Amino acid sequence: MTDPRDVVARKRDGDTLTEDELRTVVLGYARGDVSDELAAAFLMASFIRGLDRDETVALTRSMVESGRTLSLDGVSRPTVDKHSTGGVADGVTLVFAPLAASLGLAVAKLSGRGLGHTGGTLDKLESIPGFRTDLDPETFRQQVDQVGCAIAAQTEDLVPADGALYALRDATATVPSVPLIAASVMSKKLAVETDLILLDVKAGSGAFMKTPEDAAALAQACVDLAAGWGRRCRAAVTDMSQPLGEAVGNSLDIVEAVEVLRGDRGGRMTDLAVEFAAAAQAALLDVPEDEGRRRAREALSSGRAAEVFRDTVQAQGGDPRVVDEPGEILPGAPVIAPLPAERSGFLRTVDAEAIGRAAVALGAGRMRKGEPIDPAVGIVFRPKVGDRVEAEEPIGEVHARSEKLAAAVVRAVNDAMDMSDRPVDPPPLVHATRDTGDG
Amino acid sequence: MTDPRDVVARKRDGDTLTEDELRTVVLGYARGDVSDELAAAFLMASFIRGLDRDETVALTRSMVESGRTLSLDGVSRPTVDKHSTGGVADGVTLVFAPLAASLGLAVAKLSGRGLGHTGGTLDKLESIPGFRTDLDPETFRQQVDQVGCAIAAQTEDLVPADGALYALRDATATVPSVPLIAASVMSKKLAVETDLILLDVKAGSGAFMKTPEDAAALAQACVDLAAGWGRRCRAAVTDMSQPLGEAVGNSLDIVEAVEVLRGDRGGRMTDLAVEFAAAAQAALLDVPEDEGRRRAREALSSGRAAEVFRDTVQAQGGDPRVVDEPGEILPGAPVIAPLPAERSGFLRTVDAEAIGRAAVALGAGRMRKGEPIDPAVGIVFRPKVGDRVEAEEPIGEVHARSEKLAAAVVRAVNDAMDMSDRPVDPPPLVHATRDTGDG
Repeated sequence: MTDPRDVVARKRDGDTLTEDELRTVVLGYARGDVSDELAAAFLMASFIRGLDRDETVALTRSMVESGRTLSLDGVSRPTVDKHSTGGVADGVTLVFAPLAASLGLAVAKLSGRGLGHTGGTLDKLESIPGFRTDLDPETFRQQVDQVGCAIAAQTEDLVPADGALYALRDATATVPSVPLIAASVMSKKLAVETDLILLDVKAGSGAFMKTPEDAAALAQACVDLAAGWGRRCRAAVTDMSQPLGEAVGNSLDIVEAVEVLRGDRGGRMTDLAVEFAAAAQAALLDVPEDEGRRRAREALSSGRAAEVFRDTVQAQGGDPRVVDEPGEILPGAPVIAPLPAERSGFLRTVDAEAIGRAAVALGAGRMRKGEPIDPAVGIVFRPKVGDRVEAEEPIGEVHARSEKLAAAVVRAVNDAMDMSDRPVDPPPLVHATRDTGDG
Repeated sequence: MTDPRDVVARKRDGDTLTEDELRTVVLGYARGDVSDELAAAFLMASFIRGLDRDETVALTRSMVESGRTLSLDGVSRPTVDKHSTGGVADGVTLVFAPLAASLGLAVAKLSGRGLGHTGGTLDKLESIPGFRTDLDPETFRQQVDQVGCAIAAQTEDLVPADGALYALRDATATVPSVPLIAASVMSKKLAVETDLILLDVKAGSGAFMKTPEDAAALAQACVDLAAGWGRRCRAAVTDMSQPLGEAVGNSLDIVEAVEVLRGDRGGRMTDLAVEFAAAAQAALLDVPEDEGRRRAREALSSGRAAEVFRDTVQAQGGDPRVVDEPGEILPGAPVIAPLPAERSGFLRTVDAEAIGRAAVALGAGRMRKGEPIDPAVGIVFRPKVGDRVEAEEPIGEVHARSEKLAAAVVRAVNDAMDMSDRPVDPPPLVHATRDTGDG
């Protein structure tokens, strides 16, 4: 029996660990045989010395082995999972899932809760009255097969080592490590046996990775990990230098997603959902990307994507009328204050994280796991980088519990905006893509 | 208020920490505000990135600040402390303390318990019936002043952070780091306000540092630490490629020490005690080293050193007749088996750690803190590297609880010996010295 301290000592000294050694530490930690202290020392040694591709695959495999995996055997359509590393006004998953299902694919999406300044898909969906996310594996699989789309909470027995290791990393200054982040992200995707994993790796002020270069390194690590596992994965590095959509909240995000799904709304969020839908069709249905984009836009404008969303909501116990009159069905805030710009100019940059934090301050998010959120509150922020804004003109709304909170958020949002006197070019929507290939 | 995670992140990234930052982590840990996990991450980051001289001084200062310090104000003679990093058959402290006291110095020695294959001075002294090591600070200081020599257990409020950090290092594969070892060793010496610190840094098969080079690096780090603190320190790197004396046990060590103190016995342990006594006289009494050696040997042969030992034993409640007839006073083992050599030849090397472990197996030591020890048992091992040994001839004795245990130790000791057909040069006794100078 290997002493896990010897494994940690080898990583400490810069050696490359074997799969068995990584399993000793990770599964030992999941079982409680390896102490928090020793696991913390392992994480710090791995952070500083690094983990190569094979080590990262082995680490991830051990993490997946710590719990149950979810088979999708028996689902007739090709299956796809889609994950975002987290952004502000990032409702792409809400749109992509029914959209892809309306195009002949089956979307199987297990999700965690939102934390910090980035929202969570589950929290957004749960603002729909009656909507349940605690589907058991068999119910989930049946819904994926029959509706083509299911979005549920990941259960605690799915990669339990990840939850434990993530909390430990947060406590020990070992979060910002590309291999450790990649293992954390991908372990939960690899535990669900889909035919394709789509990753949206966000880059910019509202994302964990602040530069496209750092985000590309993480995208590459995730794709390498999928390739090492024998799974198909396509990662896009996308812009999070500003909120992607306009809604930063929960009910507000559902309203925006419904509008996109009904074909009532263009913009960057629609464009990105279409890109992912095209990528999924190309990978799984051999549809050329341009044709895939065309089919995706058609599914939105025809209302077919919205109908799959309706079926999904209904299958998960939610009120299907949310597709028809979301403003009536979803909880609303007592105060809806206009959000005027304080200065005129061209919007040069937005601190998207600051806007996310302002929404958290309203109650739309949580700073600690397990805290409740308020589905009704949030921010609508309309301008995009490059847009001309006039002082005193409304650029959005604040949905709040009180006038006082709303006023504070108006100031915070204006503080997050940097204006230019001269025109500004908008940033690209997609910085780069990474792919395991046709493998 | 600094977040201790930010401090750990800076060390993780290879930055140099300030004294305040190190205090945040170390005192926070001692208070319980910094978790075991974060402290473990700090230790691993410090291990891999290193700590420079100033950081090591600051770390040590924080550790000392975690508890009480011991003043020796009012002691009329110059005071000296002496510490060994731990060896096998290493009774030098037992000899040095009364010897130095008989030469006009005052020896103030706080000690921990033995652990693993190396014995502890406290355990050895406690084999003398009635001997107490739990002296309160005032009693300790008075005895140092009046008898010139006191050897007591360090209390838990002396550098509590060291005990906590040492246990954590053992659990997290962060033990063999020179700055961390130096901080651990020196924190306990610096907390006692003596005029001189003498360190015996052991190198070889029976020591923690296996090579003279590694031991010299530790000696230098310890001396640097004392210099950074403004204290005088002299460190000798000495041979532990074989047991230093002949006795490996507790009662047996006292018997050997008494024989050295009475001037009845020469050899390497006597020589090393004389070297330390000369170093202490040179540093504190301006006695040239050759003259200091002469005075030390005279104190042994005249019986003056033995008389100070008698006074020390009496002051601490022990039976003073141990100086006259140690074999009668000290506990003895039921089985005393001869230890014959299995092969003839010149002794080339000895695995001193294996001999220490064999003594632990007899009950003379402990593998875990808090375990009891058996004062009566142990090994007498006479040959030194370079000596000619004849098969079947006795080379020592095994003092054991049973014939079976004794027979196993006879085999283990022979297995620890490597014989040569040709003559072998004995290793030097002192490899190197390091000194803060006349500072």
